[in-house]
Amino acid sequence: MPAINRLSTSDADFRQRLDELLAWESVSDDAVFTTVRDILADVRRRGDAAVLEYTRRFDRREVTEAADLEIPLFRLEQALTAIPAEQRKALETAAARIRRYAERQKMDSWQYTEEDGTMLGQQVTPLDRAGLYVPGGKAAYPSSVLMNAIPAKVAGVEELIMVVPTPGGEVNELVLAAAAVAGVDRVFAVGGAQAVAALAYGTETIPAVDKIVGPGNIYVATAKRMVYGTVGIDMIAGPSEILVVCDGRTDPDWIAVDLFSQAEHDEDAQSILVSPDVQFLDRVEESMERLMAEMPRAQIIRTSLEGRGALIQVRDMDEAVEVANHIAPEHLELSVEDPEAVAARIRHAGAIFMGRYTAEALGDYCAGPNHVLPTSRTARFSSPLGVYDFQKRSSLIHCSAQGASTLGRTASTLARGEGLVAHARSAEYRIK
Amino acid sequence: MPAINRLSTSDADFRQRLDELLAWESVSDDAVFTTVRDILADVRRRGDAAVLEYTRRFDRREVTEAADLEIPLFRLEQALTAIPAEQRKALETAAARIRRYAERQKMDSWQYTEEDGTMLGQQVTPLDRAGLYVPGGKAAYPSSVLMNAIPAKVAGVEELIMVVPTPGGEVNELVLAAAAVAGVDRVFAVGGAQAVAALAYGTETIPAVDKIVGPGNIYVATAKRMVYGTVGIDMIAGPSEILVVCDGRTDPDWIAVDLFSQAEHDEDAQSILVSPDVQFLDRVEESMERLMAEMPRAQIIRTSLEGRGALIQVRDMDEAVEVANHIAPEHLELSVEDPEAVAARIRHAGAIFMGRYTAEALGDYCAGPNHVLPTSRTARFSSPLGVYDFQKRSSLIHCSAQGASTLGRTASTLARGEGLVAHARSAEYRIK
Repeated sequence: MPAINRLSTSDADFRQRLDELLAWESVSDDAVFTTVRDILADVRRRGDAAVLEYTRRFDRREVTEAADLEIPLFRLEQALTAIPAEQRKALETAAARIRRYAERQKMDSWQYTEEDGTMLGQQVTPLDRAGLYVPGGKAAYPSSVLMNAIPAKVAGVEELIMVVPTPGGEVNELVLAAAAVAGVDRVFAVGGAQAVAALAYGTETIPAVDKIVGPGNIYVATAKRMVYGTVGIDMIAGPSEILVVCDGRTDPDWIAVDLFSQAEHDEDAQSILVSPDVQFLDRVEESMERLMAEMPRAQIIRTSLEGRGALIQVRDMDEAVEVANHIAPEHLELSVEDPEAVAARIRHAGAIFMGRYTAEALGDYCAGPNHVLPTSRTARFSSPLGVYDFQKRSSLIHCSAQGASTLGRTASTLARGEGLVAHARSAEYRIK
Repeated sequence: MPAINRLSTSDADFRQRLDELLAWESVSDDAVFTTVRDILADVRRRGDAAVLEYTRRFDRREVTEAADLEIPLFRLEQALTAIPAEQRKALETAAARIRRYAERQKMDSWQYTEEDGTMLGQQVTPLDRAGLYVPGGKAAYPSSVLMNAIPAKVAGVEELIMVVPTPGGEVNELVLAAAAVAGVDRVFAVGGAQAVAALAYGTETIPAVDKIVGPGNIYVATAKRMVYGTVGIDMIAGPSEILVVCDGRTDPDWIAVDLFSQAEHDEDAQSILVSPDVQFLDRVEESMERLMAEMPRAQIIRTSLEGRGALIQVRDMDEAVEVANHIAPEHLELSVEDPEAVAARIRHAGAIFMGRYTAEALGDYCAGPNHVLPTSRTARFSSPLGVYDFQKRSSLIHCSAQGASTLGRTASTLARGEGLVAHARSAEYRIK
């Protein structure tokens, strides 16, 4: 059994130990930085030729023409037909639920007219084109394709371009099937920093996009950071985290496996359980010991729990809420009697899973809300990926002659206070 | 008169010349990068002591105690009382209008319940604490205080902390007065990268915030980029831009001064006029020649127009719209007969100023919508600063027993497809 950390809010050094456990800084060392910078510059300058070269080198593929990089849409449909019917149905069910939830997030334009006839408003438009990065190999998750692609299409993005590396030519059929279900418009078998560069700057074959979303390794994350400004990007995600708050009356086996489900992602993932019931913490620890044997990814789970996991004893639910708001977790499971009352007091969390039945895993796949969520305490200031990330707003101002005259006086005073005479004159021309 | 660039869409090299004019890359060289990195690390490690040291050095101030850095709220009220009544009234009028518009942007929580009793929703909460950077000296704009602070307070941010350098101890009374009007909660007389560091990490005296907004010089911008992730930040703004689309029937003097009002910001600012009427372009150029003499900032205007300004002839309004969507300008003035029809076809712009009376300067100060807008073509994927930038969303999922059972089957299939057995087991426990 992993020696999972035990903390109690009554410990004198509680806050310090907790903060040490929570601490996370992604490291992109100088070597990665330099490599990525050079790849970006090269793709920007040489386009397809550079993309082909890096794909031959990094993905060990015999591609000579840029057209070879595109995976045609009929291949996506083939994949969807070829996978087991149960998987296809699961993908389609999940997609329908994700789409229904996303529809609620869609922002609409609005405007209002003032007494003097001046109209003010906000016009909402979708991005023209978005790029979706999908990792290749083991970390290729079809659910991630659905979660990133569907909000973009619901927002009205005209062209959604997916890039996915196919090392050694190996293609993940479930990923292609998910792309078909999600309505991805074009797919290129390119990965790494070269794929990010192609999407940001465009090449002869791969069109430039306005925003790049989706997870990737340290090269991809570094490349996304560097092209930010030329294009938009989503958050750079840290390791996945779950915080379970339990009153001690949920089956400890359920909670143990809920904690496992986060820990199995990778060694740096973080699973924390908070409860006022110390006997319950013991029972969950016993369940973990017993159930560990059944986990194919036991080694990853063990490392994760030992390094970053914790069972935290609190005095009462008030203190549990306080701890949760400090942690600002990506996933917060409220396995308690009255989850509504507790949720209303949560100020920071990516997603809140309420009640004993709402396993976090349901949200990962098919409940409807997005599984791309703010990590590493960034829920203090950021939100789940959503339709709104693929829309943007333009302010609308339409002054009547009277409105411009009235506003012109105020603007002129403030402009002259700031020493900006052209601003003042521009406003004053419109004063009657 | 400035030799403003003349372009026509009928030129063979039009798109290339336009893109050269639009090109803008902010340069933060290695020296700036290293300086900022060291200051951030030092403030993080030594707190107040480091902040005091940098303030003595960079702002030439004799501060020995951290408490000396705080500007008490009564000083803000004093400033508001001391400034001329006309300026106070202008600030208050502008603030009221900005607040009214901001109220419309506020996002609300929502939820819906499915047939089997499963509830899905989105809980919206404000940031706990935000930091507002205000530049010192010449670039200190009271309007900028209003535009950054008011959306935060409308969002419900509990504590809004302003930092402003006071080089040599010099304080801008209008800026303090604007802070009073906007409801800023605390003010510290600190600037530069050390102020950003203090807000991001917190010191003994200056509390850590969750997001930092507001304009600053290259050191401030570089510091904001570096602390992004620890805290949220707003966009890093490039030089200000205006694109005026005119049908040729607005007074050319008005348009000339509208172009000046952007150019007077700084030498890198960009003013572009697009019209299908080549005689009108000539008349605006004549107006500019004549009116230049009246401009106190003529030298800045001249440099800006010569380097980055342009008068562009298009075939018709369709082409004008196309050019505007390519440029994706920060400010778009539609000085045309039917601005509603044209605005509806604009896909990318920070703010749209509709009709001949709506000078962009009105929007800078008091129309209501925010003047913090996406620059350098980033309106393709980002939005004006707004209340929504100080709110965040948490997904809500509350499964009924039946809902968890149904969803559990789909989740289990997908989890096993991804090889995540703990995920699958966690879902399967909840299947009836």
